[in-house]
Amino acid sequence: MYSLAELADRLGLEFAGDAGRLVRALAPLEEAGPDELAFVVNRKYLSQLATTRAGVVILPPELAAHCPCDCLLSEQPYLAFARASRLFDNAPTPAAGIHPTATVSAEADIHSQVSVGAHAVIEPGAVLEAGVVVGAGVYVGHASRLGAGTRVYPNAVIYHDVWLGRNCVVHAQAVLGADGFGFAPGPAGWEKICQLGGVRIGDGVEIGAGSTVDRGALGHTELADGVIIDNQVQIGHNCRIGKNTAIAGCAGLAGSTIIGANCTLAGGVGVVGHVEICDDVHVTGMTMVTRSITRPGSYSSGTPMSSTRDWKRNAVRFSQLDSIQRRLASLEQRDKKPDKG
Amino acid sequence: MYSLAELADRLGLEFAGDAGRLVRALAPLEEAGPDELAFVVNRKYLSQLATTRAGVVILPPELAAHCPCDCLLSEQPYLAFARASRLFDNAPTPAAGIHPTATVSAEADIHSQVSVGAHAVIEPGAVLEAGVVVGAGVYVGHASRLGAGTRVYPNAVIYHDVWLGRNCVVHAQAVLGADGFGFAPGPAGWEKICQLGGVRIGDGVEIGAGSTVDRGALGHTELADGVIIDNQVQIGHNCRIGKNTAIAGCAGLAGSTIIGANCTLAGGVGVVGHVEICDDVHVTGMTMVTRSITRPGSYSSGTPMSSTRDWKRNAVRFSQLDSIQRRLASLEQRDKKPDKG
Amino acid sequence: MYSLAELADRLGLEFAGDAGRLVRALAPLEEAGPDELAFVVNRKYLSQLATTRAGVVILPPELAAHCPCDCLLSEQPYLAFARASRLFDNAPTPAAGIHPTATVSAEADIHSQVSVGAHAVIEPGAVLEAGVVVGAGVYVGHASRLGAGTRVYPNAVIYHDVWLGRNCVVHAQAVLGADGFGFAPGPAGWEKICQLGGVRIGDGVEIGAGSTVDRGALGHTELADGVIIDNQVQIGHNCRIGKNTAIAGCAGLAGSTIIGANCTLAGGVGVVGHVEICDDVHVTGMTMVTRSITRPGSYSSGTPMSSTRDWKRNAVRFSQLDSIQRRLASLEQRDKKPDKG
Repeated sequence: MYSLAELADRLGLEFAGDAGRLVRALAPLEEAGPDELAFVVNRKYLSQLATTRAGVVILPPELAAHCPCDCLLSEQPYLAFARASRLFDNAPTPAAGIHPTATVSAEADIHSQVSVGAHAVIEPGAVLEAGVVVGAGVYVGHASRLGAGTRVYPNAVIYHDVWLGRNCVVHAQAVLGADGFGFAPGPAGWEKICQLGGVRIGDGVEIGAGSTVDRGALGHTELADGVIIDNQVQIGHNCRIGKNTAIAGCAGLAGSTIIGANCTLAGGVGVVGHVEICDDVHVTGMTMVTRSITRPGSYSSGTPMSSTRDWKRNAVRFSQLDSIQRRLASLEQRDKKPDKG
Repeated sequence: MYSLAELADRLGLEFAGDAGRLVRALAPLEEAGPDELAFVVNRKYLSQLATTRAGVVILPPELAAHCPCDCLLSEQPYLAFARASRLFDNAPTPAAGIHPTATVSAEADIHSQVSVGAHAVIEPGAVLEAGVVVGAGVYVGHASRLGAGTRVYPNAVIYHDVWLGRNCVVHAQAVLGADGFGFAPGPAGWEKICQLGGVRIGDGVEIGAGSTVDRGALGHTELADGVIIDNQVQIGHNCRIGKNTAIAGCAGLAGSTIIGANCTLAGGVGVVGHVEICDDVHVTGMTMVTRSITRPGSYSSGTPMSSTRDWKRNAVRFSQLDSIQRRLASLEQRDKKPDKG
Repeated sequence: MYSLAELADRLGLEFAGDAGRLVRALAPLEEAGPDELAFVVNRKYLSQLATTRAGVVILPPELAAHCPCDCLLSEQPYLAFARASRLFDNAPTPAAGIHPTATVSAEADIHSQVSVGAHAVIEPGAVLEAGVVVGAGVYVGHASRLGAGTRVYPNAVIYHDVWLGRNCVVHAQAVLGADGFGFAPGPAGWEKICQLGGVRIGDGVEIGAGSTVDRGALGHTELADGVIIDNQVQIGHNCRIGKNTAIAGCAGLAGSTIIGANCTLAGGVGVVGHVEICDDVHVTGMTMVTRSITRPGSYSSGTPMSSTRDWKRNAVRFSQLDSIQRRLASLEQRDKKPDKG
């Protein structure tokens, strides 16, 4: 519970209205009540703003005149709202210290200010810096490193030689450092190529639940600072992902893919191996990236959804596209001939 | 092992044949032997029925005359077979009580009739009602609730403030309540939006292995009664899924997606965020749903599979489709002109 | 660290150069230094070979004349490199014996030469043969079997009645034997069909992190010898996968799919249920397989990626394809008429 004045102070924003008004929680604009804080990013929401029951709204200064309630003024209301969300964070605080049921190697290097949950396993040579939180059942392999303030949620698995920077978040069931999918065809079947590299992850990286980042075959798989990865994303061996790139759920990157900085890959995107995507590329949902992208911009593949009946009719024509274009070319040819008809 | 008469009694069905015939197991029609039970849903399988070696077949009354063996009569043979499968369930029974290696908070509210497996962790404020089964290595977070008869398989992770109703099933490695993918762009990169909501799941919901259901950003992510979710499905924050909707493997829903009741999403379907799908919609495999669906029916996207050689030829024309249509329109135009040629 | 002569001996290859040269590690051709081993598969890499700083290169005999450094001669350089990778394997060796925190049933059949990690659970009737390695937190269900030399990485879950052959590898968070997605529509919603079958996996099978292989409904789900499966792959109930078939990341197989031997499914491929793919089929990335494939070869679906602007223009035409073809047919018809224009 914060007063409006306190909120303004903590968020570094100007306010207008009752300094003592108490805010209990955050809520969407249409649902917020008199003790709740909402936000409006632009004029598009003016009509909703007019009828809101929110106690306080974060909005751009130019909309202040339209606000029927108290407000906080920000040129970036969404960012201000993100920061406000931290003030209202209700997640339970992890217990300090090492749980008695955890199995922590005497040869691991554990800072005194860490939290290690029940049944977690920390192998020899692992390093846990100050403020690290290792959830229940987490496995941290030999010589892996968790930088200061990094948090790993229950049952995630970190193989050996995986380094994470400071203030990373790894959600439950994520797997960092499993073997890349490397096999050579031999006389009797596939022969495994031992995956000798590790994983190197920068600062402030978030990795979603069930996502997998494979270790390198030779050399490391690398995620730069500020990369954010949603749930169930697969990152193949020796991928390199640039600073602040965001990858949404169910996307998959084959091996040795290089992605630049400030890219966004939407949900379900697939990227083949050994291609390179430059900085500032956006790829829309479920696109199949089959070649390198050398110019910033937005890229897509796929077909639009329709009723299954219509879709079937059109889809069958897709398989005739080349012949359709040849028939068209032939008509065009005839059309040009002066002696035609 | 049941006699035919016992089976008929337990399934509430009429039978024809030897009341004392013993049935040892279920089997597909083509593979079943004289001590096995198979089923036939309709006339399509009459030829297979004619040659079956099954001891007993569940079939609609109108096919009884065609049955070469004993039979159970049901208007819904598949449903009767589902119910018969429960009589032959061979899964091991979980041990009663709390395993001595489990870490159960004294501040959790645990019914006396539960099973908690080895190395499971139950945090303060968690509630386990009668008949709950928590598998080995499962994590149940603060103030989360498992309704009567709910079963969670090994190593699944349930974050804090996640409520499940009665008789739910959560398979191994599922993650309920991890943070939604919420970040705001800030001056130095992405800034996390704390995910303050929880997850609310109704009665009789089944969630497959490795599936993830994110907690809400504000308010809850909600799954209604009877929802069934296959393996490796991703449900984003603040999704709401209606009663008895089924979602098959590898499907992914971005945030704030609303899906009605009695829908079926086939495998690999992707749904963008903030759209709404009405009741009674079927979406075929790997379709990309990019807009709301307001009428019941079946929807699709994608292209048909062909040999890679043919596909390449046609796919290149896809990138020329707009020019193909313009060339066609131009020919049509010329064709209409009276002074043409 | 190996001398060139030792390497040649262990790999069964001829060499040319300084028998005593020491090789410390493997590296890609462009990055390798004087104490590292690289490889070249064919003439395509001759220019890189000319300028390499590698100490030793594995290459085909016919390229030996072009090699600026010491070399190992192999008709299959990639395979030789795979075998060399095992000599340089740097993964930590699992501790012998059963960790005191593991929960191992007295009714399990455990060979004396196994490694069972911290907090692992082995249920009654489970069989662990010689050389098995069970990682920390792994669950092995009732009557499941791990053949000699099989390794299971941390927190993977193996349900009951799942058999693995010899020398298999199962990565972290994989789930073998969860229930298939089987439900019958009943009067009040879905009714579960108990999944009464198990999983049968051959020798030398590798299963990636987070992949799921469901148990059979009736009868078993089967993976033949030498099958390799990447991360986050979903295999539905009663699938049968033939010898040495490879399935890349994020692919999904619906139930009762049969795949032949020596097939390769690229990343993100989806296969509908109840179809059959013959031996020696390759399916390219993100293809949707909606019918059986009866002839060896390469198969594809999908559309090529382009800029989102171009894509939108073409995609809208996809929904008009059937009408485009009808308009074309109509022009062709008119064009044929002698009395036209």
